[in-house]
Amino acid sequence: MNSLELRDLLTRVKTGHLDPDAAHDLLQSRLRTLPFEDLGFARVDHHRALRQGFPEVVLGLGKTPAQIAAIAERIASRGQTLLVTRANRDAWAAVSVAVPGASYHEAASAITLKQGEIPDGTGTVLVVAAGTSDLGVAEEAAVTADVMGNAVDRLIDVGVAGLHRLLREQERLTRARVIVVVAGMEGALPSVVAGLVNVPVIGVPTSVGYGASFGGIAALLGMLNSCANGVSVVNIDNGFGAGCIASLINHLPST
Amino acid sequence: MNSLELRDLLTRVKTGHLDPDAAHDLLQSRLRTLPFEDLGFARVDHHRALRQGFPEVVLGLGKTPAQIAAIAERIASRGQTLLVTRANRDAWAAVSVAVPGASYHEAASAITLKQGEIPDGTGTVLVVAAGTSDLGVAEEAAVTADVMGNAVDRLIDVGVAGLHRLLREQERLTRARVIVVVAGMEGALPSVVAGLVNVPVIGVPTSVGYGASFGGIAALLGMLNSCANGVSVVNIDNGFGAGCIASLINHLPST
Amino acid sequence: MNSLELRDLLTRVKTGHLDPDAAHDLLQSRLRTLPFEDLGFARVDHHRALRQGFPEVVLGLGKTPAQIAAIAERIASRGQTLLVTRANRDAWAAVSVAVPGASYHEAASAITLKQGEIPDGTGTVLVVAAGTSDLGVAEEAAVTADVMGNAVDRLIDVGVAGLHRLLREQERLTRARVIVVVAGMEGALPSVVAGLVNVPVIGVPTSVGYGASFGGIAALLGMLNSCANGVSVVNIDNGFGAGCIASLINHLPST
Amino acid sequence: MNSLELRDLLTRVKTGHLDPDAAHDLLQSRLRTLPFEDLGFARVDHHRALRQGFPEVVLGLGKTPAQIAAIAERIASRGQTLLVTRANRDAWAAVSVAVPGASYHEAASAITLKQGEIPDGTGTVLVVAAGTSDLGVAEEAAVTADVMGNAVDRLIDVGVAGLHRLLREQERLTRARVIVVVAGMEGALPSVVAGLVNVPVIGVPTSVGYGASFGGIAALLGMLNSCANGVSVVNIDNGFGAGCIASLINHLPST
Amino acid sequence: MNSLELRDLLTRVKTGHLDPDAAHDLLQSRLRTLPFEDLGFARVDHHRALRQGFPEVVLGLGKTPAQIAAIAERIASRGQTLLVTRANRDAWAAVSVAVPGASYHEAASAITLKQGEIPDGTGTVLVVAAGTSDLGVAEEAAVTADVMGNAVDRLIDVGVAGLHRLLREQERLTRARVIVVVAGMEGALPSVVAGLVNVPVIGVPTSVGYGASFGGIAALLGMLNSCANGVSVVNIDNGFGAGCIASLINHLPST
Amino acid sequence: MNSLELRDLLTRVKTGHLDPDAAHDLLQSRLRTLPFEDLGFARVDHHRALRQGFPEVVLGLGKTPAQIAAIAERIASRGQTLLVTRANRDAWAAVSVAVPGASYHEAASAITLKQGEIPDGTGTVLVVAAGTSDLGVAEEAAVTADVMGNAVDRLIDVGVAGLHRLLREQERLTRARVIVVVAGMEGALPSVVAGLVNVPVIGVPTSVGYGASFGGIAALLGMLNSCANGVSVVNIDNGFGAGCIASLINHLPST
Amino acid sequence: MNSLELRDLLTRVKTGHLDPDAAHDLLQSRLRTLPFEDLGFARVDHHRALRQGFPEVVLGLGKTPAQIAAIAERIASRGQTLLVTRANRDAWAAVSVAVPGASYHEAASAITLKQGEIPDGTGTVLVVAAGTSDLGVAEEAAVTADVMGNAVDRLIDVGVAGLHRLLREQERLTRARVIVVVAGMEGALPSVVAGLVNVPVIGVPTSVGYGASFGGIAALLGMLNSCANGVSVVNIDNGFGAGCIASLINHLPST
Amino acid sequence: MNSLELRDLLTRVKTGHLDPDAAHDLLQSRLRTLPFEDLGFARVDHHRALRQGFPEVVLGLGKTPAQIAAIAERIASRGQTLLVTRANRDAWAAVSVAVPGASYHEAASAITLKQGEIPDGTGTVLVVAAGTSDLGVAEEAAVTADVMGNAVDRLIDVGVAGLHRLLREQERLTRARVIVVVAGMEGALPSVVAGLVNVPVIGVPTSVGYGASFGGIAALLGMLNSCANGVSVVNIDNGFGAGCIASLINHLPST
Repeated sequence: MNSLELRDLLTRVKTGHLDPDAAHDLLQSRLRTLPFEDLGFARVDHHRALRQGFPEVVLGLGKTPAQIAAIAERIASRGQTLLVTRANRDAWAAVSVAVPGASYHEAASAITLKQGEIPDGTGTVLVVAAGTSDLGVAEEAAVTADVMGNAVDRLIDVGVAGLHRLLREQERLTRARVIVVVAGMEGALPSVVAGLVNVPVIGVPTSVGYGASFGGIAALLGMLNSCANGVSVVNIDNGFGAGCIASLINHLPST
Repeated sequence: MNSLELRDLLTRVKTGHLDPDAAHDLLQSRLRTLPFEDLGFARVDHHRALRQGFPEVVLGLGKTPAQIAAIAERIASRGQTLLVTRANRDAWAAVSVAVPGASYHEAASAITLKQGEIPDGTGTVLVVAAGTSDLGVAEEAAVTADVMGNAVDRLIDVGVAGLHRLLREQERLTRARVIVVVAGMEGALPSVVAGLVNVPVIGVPTSVGYGASFGGIAALLGMLNSCANGVSVVNIDNGFGAGCIASLINHLPST
Repeated sequence: MNSLELRDLLTRVKTGHLDPDAAHDLLQSRLRTLPFEDLGFARVDHHRALRQGFPEVVLGLGKTPAQIAAIAERIASRGQTLLVTRANRDAWAAVSVAVPGASYHEAASAITLKQGEIPDGTGTVLVVAAGTSDLGVAEEAAVTADVMGNAVDRLIDVGVAGLHRLLREQERLTRARVIVVVAGMEGALPSVVAGLVNVPVIGVPTSVGYGASFGGIAALLGMLNSCANGVSVVNIDNGFGAGCIASLINHLPST
Repeated sequence: MNSLELRDLLTRVKTGHLDPDAAHDLLQSRLRTLPFEDLGFARVDHHRALRQGFPEVVLGLGKTPAQIAAIAERIASRGQTLLVTRANRDAWAAVSVAVPGASYHEAASAITLKQGEIPDGTGTVLVVAAGTSDLGVAEEAAVTADVMGNAVDRLIDVGVAGLHRLLREQERLTRARVIVVVAGMEGALPSVVAGLVNVPVIGVPTSVGYGASFGGIAALLGMLNSCANGVSVVNIDNGFGAGCIASLINHLPST
Repeated sequence: MNSLELRDLLTRVKTGHLDPDAAHDLLQSRLRTLPFEDLGFARVDHHRALRQGFPEVVLGLGKTPAQIAAIAERIASRGQTLLVTRANRDAWAAVSVAVPGASYHEAASAITLKQGEIPDGTGTVLVVAAGTSDLGVAEEAAVTADVMGNAVDRLIDVGVAGLHRLLREQERLTRARVIVVVAGMEGALPSVVAGLVNVPVIGVPTSVGYGASFGGIAALLGMLNSCANGVSVVNIDNGFGAGCIASLINHLPST
Repeated sequence: MNSLELRDLLTRVKTGHLDPDAAHDLLQSRLRTLPFEDLGFARVDHHRALRQGFPEVVLGLGKTPAQIAAIAERIASRGQTLLVTRANRDAWAAVSVAVPGASYHEAASAITLKQGEIPDGTGTVLVVAAGTSDLGVAEEAAVTADVMGNAVDRLIDVGVAGLHRLLREQERLTRARVIVVVAGMEGALPSVVAGLVNVPVIGVPTSVGYGASFGGIAALLGMLNSCANGVSVVNIDNGFGAGCIASLINHLPST
Repeated sequence: MNSLELRDLLTRVKTGHLDPDAAHDLLQSRLRTLPFEDLGFARVDHHRALRQGFPEVVLGLGKTPAQIAAIAERIASRGQTLLVTRANRDAWAAVSVAVPGASYHEAASAITLKQGEIPDGTGTVLVVAAGTSDLGVAEEAAVTADVMGNAVDRLIDVGVAGLHRLLREQERLTRARVIVVVAGMEGALPSVVAGLVNVPVIGVPTSVGYGASFGGIAALLGMLNSCANGVSVVNIDNGFGAGCIASLINHLPST
Repeated sequence: MNSLELRDLLTRVKTGHLDPDAAHDLLQSRLRTLPFEDLGFARVDHHRALRQGFPEVVLGLGKTPAQIAAIAERIASRGQTLLVTRANRDAWAAVSVAVPGASYHEAASAITLKQGEIPDGTGTVLVVAAGTSDLGVAEEAAVTADVMGNAVDRLIDVGVAGLHRLLREQERLTRARVIVVVAGMEGALPSVVAGLVNVPVIGVPTSVGYGASFGGIAALLGMLNSCANGVSVVNIDNGFGAGCIASLINHLPST
């Protein structure tokens, strides 16, 4: 039960469409369970949707397919939206059985199942990727923002060595309310993008590159030292984190 | 001339309060100059207020007092709001002569002069600092957010080793629209704060600490690896950057 | 022959239950051998139980299954308790043949065989893990503490981003005499736990994470820079070391 | 009011030596104040002695002499024991005025004032230093352990390159209940000491050395990778932390 | 005697303007001395101009003013062009006495004395600097290229966060035969410049910045990982090296 | 259409060999298409040959064989020269089908197809490799320089530990117009080579080595700190980049 | 032909046992060939035995089995002693065919063929290894020293955490003329050994360990910062290098 | 009393020049004292000359002038040779009073006093320095070798970028029995030297350089990865260590 559903229930009580006793029982049944469910190897946080606007997200990395499927099943069975990140094909095989209606986004290595009402964000989240090799991380950001209720636009292969490809898309940049910029190698794209717009830019360094890119450190340092205002940074390859922050910003209330 | 002043002028034209010819001359005189002014050692960007919502900010680090004062004078003489960061006492001595009405914020090492109309942000920017030693960086963030037109709240010395000091302030955390969390040493505070709220958290690692804190690297890594959703990070000691992003988010239009 | 067995023997002599000559012969046969046994590729230290309270422990890493099995056999054949860490399935296959009664703890990658009398520790060793992915290291600590004669309690998936999961367990934290805290990513959990208790906390950073976690360096630095008193740290993924230190503390004599 | 004083008060109530009403008023006056006191730039935690067995300790690093003196005065005026670490001569000048009876330990860069009853630890804390240059850090550990109520023994200049100096002191090593080992350069001493005893060893790497010692990193890594059981590690130069953990261990209750 | 002077002499012999015997004596007197001169603490390489097209350059760093002056005097007294880099005011004080006609370039921390004929380079060396704080390193590159016989153009404060400042100068970029790009912080400028031109770009990372710029490492890594073709890199702050390579390229013979 | 073909067309118009209308139509058909072609996952830059003298080069790393083949096919179908670097056997299998006439250079892991007129460089590009293990990177540099229109010479296994092997080849060193020096381990060869010649030297550190070579960092640092003038550096293992810069230098116009 | 064989030949000439003409022809045939032989991918240095006392050694790492076999065959066919290091089973398969009499040392991953007369070293080279996991590197050192003509003694599993195992072998330590000490983890053994003897100690850090051992960096730093006199260090896992230096020292002439 | 003096005494007993009783008393008086003397802050090792061939050496770094003077006085007063390294002018001021006959070597920052008989080494120790800035470290090595009883030769400013300066000195290289090579920046000189000789080479990286030299790390890595046989390495700037090892090698007995 997320915040929107809760408000809806209370409004129906206030307007007389829902009997207080019925509402009480309904709330009871939903809240009766512990705020988290202990699976032994994990504590699934079922009230997070209420507290933080979106159900608990499952990070697939470092968990066995069986563990992922068990957690995913607990979340989905409550009618909550499911998002599993860093899910490889083995994890998907296990989850597809445990959670029948779920979908697999191969490029993003993510599993999703939309359930319940997710409130719409105010504007558009734009995901920009410097090169073809950054696609996987960019897709993780885009799928995350999408499943969290945001309109998503994508702009791929617009690296700084060929500025005309980016400058030609100035209009799409200007239209966005928040921009996720994904780049490996020297990680210079967020600085250039932030110099062209007036909205928050979230940089995602990727581990794309070789030699002195050091698995994304060069890109990470480049973004942390950005000479442009408005750039904040998340962990290397953390498309999910960037999509999530973009969604948080895009869902801030109007007043 | 910032965006608000420009809109005002155009509205006055539309409503007949300003003659188109007069408006033309007025705009001419303001835009006649180059979009930037070349001082030889610097190119002052006078149209940035129009493009990015706030005039160019002067980073004092690595510039001589004379250079800082010259740039500050060019900005202030256009009637634009002035912000100089990383300004030591020598820089302030030079600027206080060149820009008569300016103020010095010692804890923040910042110089400000508010001029023109700065649009108000929607909500409150909360600046949280883990310890007393993080005060300087926290103040840089707070002064930046303030001069950019935001209501600012401060919460100091609420490190994770004494959680009761933070938990007692849950209400102020909840009231904020965007939170800047400043912490050195292990840099764990942003994770804890982000787990308690539903708004964007911007982590600022500080160089506070010794030994294996490596001048802020430990705190930086801690924040980049945050297990909480909603945390993005800026450079070590970059209070200005965090305040600036907080302001960008707080100034996003309602629709 | 460990310290407890030696004291028991001497007491039996003193109380007349054991003839001095018999005691002499018994001691002779046990001490006759060299303090270590040279296998060519290893020197098995058979008197360590006497000197340090627990027999030599075998680190499986970097040894062949045959080498591990040979060393394990020498230890077990003396009637000493056996602990092999970092034992993969191949090592287990070899040891299970060489040491018939031994057990394999898959999650902990450890092989054990309890033999002889191990003195009981004073209180409880609590092993806390931040997330599901930290389970393996946490189990290594728990199995180590258990085989060394300690009561062990476990608390899993109580990371700092959802503090309510940890705060709810305050009572179990308070009951412990020494606490091992296992965490990857930003490694902030030991700081938070140490702020809630009054006993030694041993932090174990894990290599869980990706990108700027650098194989556990971020967590290690986070723990070394802990702002809480009472936190000491062992090597990344070194669950054994933490369990061993916890046991040492828990076995300190009353006076 | 520390735990010992509280128990004393309750016992006196139980035995009729203290009137419940008087006890109530006394407790009131002590607890009336907030659990912490907000000085604006710091939140002094006055109940920490109750929660953690020792009053809040002031880390001098990164605070101005005036800030240190103000915090020290608040702690001392409650009758609590005062410990300021990393206090240079300027800090001492300010504190000596604000807290009349305090003492300055120059080698340790620490300020102390013993007040109230500090419970005695069970055994002896031994502080071992590899070389003359490690003295400052060793003294910080020793002063900390002393002020926290422990018998302290010191062993200086017994580095691993001249083993006879250490082996000659085997008896003092064996007598200790917990050992703090301070070493710079290659940081090998904790491994050697831990191989000779059967009690917890806390390693403190120091920034002593040059070139590839990297300000203590070499010693830190040496200790983290110790091949001996029973060694845990604190931050580089963190004598206070080591003394504090040693005290925690030495104060664990008998049962 | 550089290559140009040697060719001139030989041509004069061939055309009968110089008698072979006179030429012989002249060459004798110049080549009679050892190819280097041993000052005890230095071996001054007097034939370098012949071998490498420019006399030995003195790196002031790590040498005493007296050592610098002695070496400079030996070079200047042979009629060779003098270039001392990393020369502080003390070094200049010593050299100005030892080498009367020399000049000091304060911004570049360089001392020069042009002597003999330096061959002209083919085109223009353009030195581009990202910000005001990069001026010192840029000047070192410019002074080096100038004293080595190149036409030099400068473009200052054209960082990537305000692309319009750079794009407006496209013509000057296109006119250059080789471009030195000096940048600190994220070091992204060389990538952007190289994408706009068709000539070699030499990147010079500077130590300008703070926090995670790590004294220029961020900029260095950014440039090494440049996604643009045609960028090679020199050491952090090595303006001299870049100016020297630019000159080498600009002096390559036409055929 | 590269620069040479464009000049040829314009000359033919000027000399009357081509009718302006025909020229117009021809140019139309070539320029009608967008300057880049959007494949969804990549934006192929078809005008790069015009802007930068050589068509877009495909970096195989991080792209699927299918993606590589699709991009290669678009480039080849325009009659442009094709170069794919870091192409493994799977990539070659895909490209060999999509681009019938292409060749695979196994040692260099590169795919090429020469098409159109590539202008000849002025002199010879010499590729020097320190050891047998550096061959792959050296071949990438050599193949790149060759396909870009340069005469290429190779010198293999002339490391600094056996100087006579290098000194014996002084003549070939002197003949080169630009030298690419490939070396792993300590990376000292570029310094030695640059001391023997008077032309630009481009150092390519390789990841060859073990232990403290840290995947090429030792060689990279060695080259960046070269005490010889004239050495610039590219990323570890970046043979392509070095070959490309060498070609840029070798193609600079005579005036 | 090594130095010993050359001296022998000359002596035989002097003493009349060899006719000068015959000697001339013999020398001719041996020296006729180039000092190195160019295989295209390698330059085999056939005169190294004469210059440096031992023929060229083949580092197997980074070479294909075919390349290794070809080089090995060239060396062996000249009657020179062969040593191939870092030779895996595939390399051995190829070399065993190309060089019939060669032997494979599996633990050392080395191939050897003793040929010609190798002069004997003066004393014994002692190879000490801290643990069982360091055996491979220790064997590389021992095999190298052996094939180069030295008496070799081995001491395995004598790590610093159990000093009695080392102290018991004091006599073997004292007997050695040069000692190679191989250790991973904290790398403390060379310091302890050097404190017990009066001969050169060569430390070889190994990549044995996990977590903060960083592939041998911890051990390397430990050895570089040794507080004992007489310890020099080679690259991580470089058993060959250590054996080679030990042999050089052991072969220094008596006067 | 060093080894030579002891042998002399025993010989005199054997030959009847010294009465056994007198010898006994003499030995008594020398050995009566503890093997070390405890100054509280230091344990001076008076028997080291006997055990290791040279008295204890005082590392001035990290000790106060008073501590240095006190230790120096204890050593000198026993008639032992004194060597203090890293002694600044303040230390010298204190020692010159405490030890009247001592000398200060300014370039080496060392204090010496030769006393007793130091046995002569077999051959010459050659100290080679790459540049003028490496002089200080080279002098520390040379003074150390000299005071330990070795003939010392010096070769300064022979860096690899101008090979002719080194090659011209081949004869002095060949004459040496052991060579210390001191170099900063890329640290390539030891590789080149070791390729030219047949004796042990000890590399000393120096902190000379800037930017990516990282205080000597580049040079250190360069030397550790040397492709030449026979190079071992000591800590950055550790001239003393190198001189000491060279002396150990040079003093190895003939048989």
